[in-house]
Amino acid sequence: MSSAAESGVVRTERVGSVEVVRLNRPTRLNAFTEDLRREIIAAFDETDADDSVRAVVLTGTGRAFCAGADLASGGETFVLDADDSGRAPADAGGQVALRIYRSTKPVVAAINGPAAGVGVTMTLPADVRIASETAKFGFVFTRRGLVPEACSTWFLPRVVGISTALEWTLGGQMVTAIEACERGMVREIVPADQVVARAVTVAEEMVAGTAPVSVAMTRSLMWRMLGASEPEVAHRAESEAIFRRGTSADVKEGVQAFLDKRAPEFPDRVSEGLPGHGVPRE
Amino acid sequence: MSSAAESGVVRTERVGSVEVVRLNRPTRLNAFTEDLRREIIAAFDETDADDSVRAVVLTGTGRAFCAGADLASGGETFVLDADDSGRAPADAGGQVALRIYRSTKPVVAAINGPAAGVGVTMTLPADVRIASETAKFGFVFTRRGLVPEACSTWFLPRVVGISTALEWTLGGQMVTAIEACERGMVREIVPADQVVARAVTVAEEMVAGTAPVSVAMTRSLMWRMLGASEPEVAHRAESEAIFRRGTSADVKEGVQAFLDKRAPEFPDRVSEGLPGHGVPRE
Amino acid sequence: MSSAAESGVVRTERVGSVEVVRLNRPTRLNAFTEDLRREIIAAFDETDADDSVRAVVLTGTGRAFCAGADLASGGETFVLDADDSGRAPADAGGQVALRIYRSTKPVVAAINGPAAGVGVTMTLPADVRIASETAKFGFVFTRRGLVPEACSTWFLPRVVGISTALEWTLGGQMVTAIEACERGMVREIVPADQVVARAVTVAEEMVAGTAPVSVAMTRSLMWRMLGASEPEVAHRAESEAIFRRGTSADVKEGVQAFLDKRAPEFPDRVSEGLPGHGVPRE
Repeated sequence: MSSAAESGVVRTERVGSVEVVRLNRPTRLNAFTEDLRREIIAAFDETDADDSVRAVVLTGTGRAFCAGADLASGGETFVLDADDSGRAPADAGGQVALRIYRSTKPVVAAINGPAAGVGVTMTLPADVRIASETAKFGFVFTRRGLVPEACSTWFLPRVVGISTALEWTLGGQMVTAIEACERGMVREIVPADQVVARAVTVAEEMVAGTAPVSVAMTRSLMWRMLGASEPEVAHRAESEAIFRRGTSADVKEGVQAFLDKRAPEFPDRVSEGLPGHGVPRE
Repeated sequence: MSSAAESGVVRTERVGSVEVVRLNRPTRLNAFTEDLRREIIAAFDETDADDSVRAVVLTGTGRAFCAGADLASGGETFVLDADDSGRAPADAGGQVALRIYRSTKPVVAAINGPAAGVGVTMTLPADVRIASETAKFGFVFTRRGLVPEACSTWFLPRVVGISTALEWTLGGQMVTAIEACERGMVREIVPADQVVARAVTVAEEMVAGTAPVSVAMTRSLMWRMLGASEPEVAHRAESEAIFRRGTSADVKEGVQAFLDKRAPEFPDRVSEGLPGHGVPRE
Repeated sequence: MSSAAESGVVRTERVGSVEVVRLNRPTRLNAFTEDLRREIIAAFDETDADDSVRAVVLTGTGRAFCAGADLASGGETFVLDADDSGRAPADAGGQVALRIYRSTKPVVAAINGPAAGVGVTMTLPADVRIASETAKFGFVFTRRGLVPEACSTWFLPRVVGISTALEWTLGGQMVTAIEACERGMVREIVPADQVVARAVTVAEEMVAGTAPVSVAMTRSLMWRMLGASEPEVAHRAESEAIFRRGTSADVKEGVQAFLDKRAPEFPDRVSEGLPGHGVPRE
């Protein structure tokens, strides 16, 4: 990842309340670089900070979603410098995955074409994956002498089950969009020219009529409790969250609107903070 | 939940070795109240203590299973008092969920009609869910300004997978019985007038020919190890359990009956205690 | 398990790069004994140590895969001696399961016929299960007065989901090969006389073109992160693994071969050690 610094490798556009974030190195099949890492994270920092954004669609420009790490440096691509204390530097793909995992807005991946290596693993913390008919997926790590990254050893078995996760990553063969859909990684498959529009619609439907702070807290609780050792951990976190939300203007409006049979207008804003965030560590 | 105290909001009846526990506020669609919380927990205390009960069916009277929290107090419904030390009080739905999770008898939910909010989340620690054709499910929390409760941020992703759990709870749209069955939350769908009878049959088949103490220990081990960090934790808990059970009258009878090709008559009783219960914490 | 010592109760043969490990007590339906425990573990010690072995197939001789614990001692079968400190001895099935779980080579179970008790639970840490049309599965523990073992209270809900795991183990009824396939425990069903050949093919395809050290590390990471409390744990383990692998001869070869569009020849050997193994505990 020693390529000269590029900017503008991520482009964003607003469609209604949905921010579309595009990997934008189409001549390199959106291959992953240090610049791409930095700009993806910056884009999610912006969507979190902007209350007018209710959801995020992550996609790529051109015919590929992301070809994986940019191999312009050949066999030296993965030679990394230790950090200041001599330890392994934080995996770049993992930094992106954790940023998406921590998004306060729902994330729909619109996988517009082939996705390999970090190109597929970075989509696992999205809430929904919509794939183009032209998409295919390569967990190719063992075929390059590497291992899976971007926290995919945690996310993948939770998304598709351990048996499928092992099958896909041990062998590293390409996975078709149809197989990815059958195994639960992809929710639906659409023609290539419709994948972004469909993802925007799914994202809009997901947040319609919901309270932004509730959505952010629910997303955080659900993902975090997925790793919790026992339901009692969730009981404590939820009790705190319910207690804090119970006196909120949002709940007063949400319950009254339901009783009045009208659409609610929730006043609370994500940018003002989430009660109980982060969820207490065990 | 400031409604005047009601009693008899849970009714029980015995069918063979199965105790049928009914939410019984049909004029309020069995909406959840403090009284309902207390009486559900009391019903499970009784089924645990009574060795003649081998399994529990949880259902509702009337056309709904449970409409969620009773909103008679309107927008003030979720304004809760802090506990004595100023902290969040324990979520009432979570107390019910944990009680069902800790049941020493298998639990079959017979979801006789619509279930919303805590009405659906309280069923997640059941071992099997049978749904009426008239059932539908609403994880409506974000549409009221709330967050999921009843430990559902722990149970739901484990029952239906994280992708479905996020989809259902972020958006809060109603889920049909058919979709709930396809995603694995519901095992089967039957006509409304057959749901309790079918649940009783499933419960009876589940415990026929089994040792009550083994069933209770297996249920506890399986649920608890679902959150354990590594198989070595299960190895320790199982080694202890096998060692304690190995010298029991139950095993002597179980093995001998198998060798004799006759039905076993297991002498050990749940009310006399479970060896190794609770399972050691990590 | 007080039977007189037998040897040769496990037989191995090499087929290409795949080691076929056979439970070999066909007159006892390959019932599990202390000798079988010891020889299975020894067989996996050998496959781990031998770099010419790329994958393992586990199967049984004769018409059964494994009938479970050998009940030659009748009702005393499970009366075990405490260890030197008076505590429960380590469950024998669990020792086998943990050995398979820690295998550095992928494991394909070729379940050639009925599998009951430890006969089925020992296959859960395999990466893939191929079943004969004649296979059926009995999690019979509660019907003998016992509880599930071989770490199956950890593995089973992760392989088939908690609802199916509870259903199969609470009641202990026999599970058909078809149901096991539908629920995700078995990947495919083939005629009895083809099950070993098919398993060998699946194993060969799984490792073709992959780096042995990467496969071993991926298998370890994926299984271990299945129990990790949060993705940040995987991020640390993967960052270390990527850093160590990044400078390896394997990666240099893997990336260069990919760029050259030729098959890679990976130089690193599992017997020389795995960087970052074991994965750091939380």
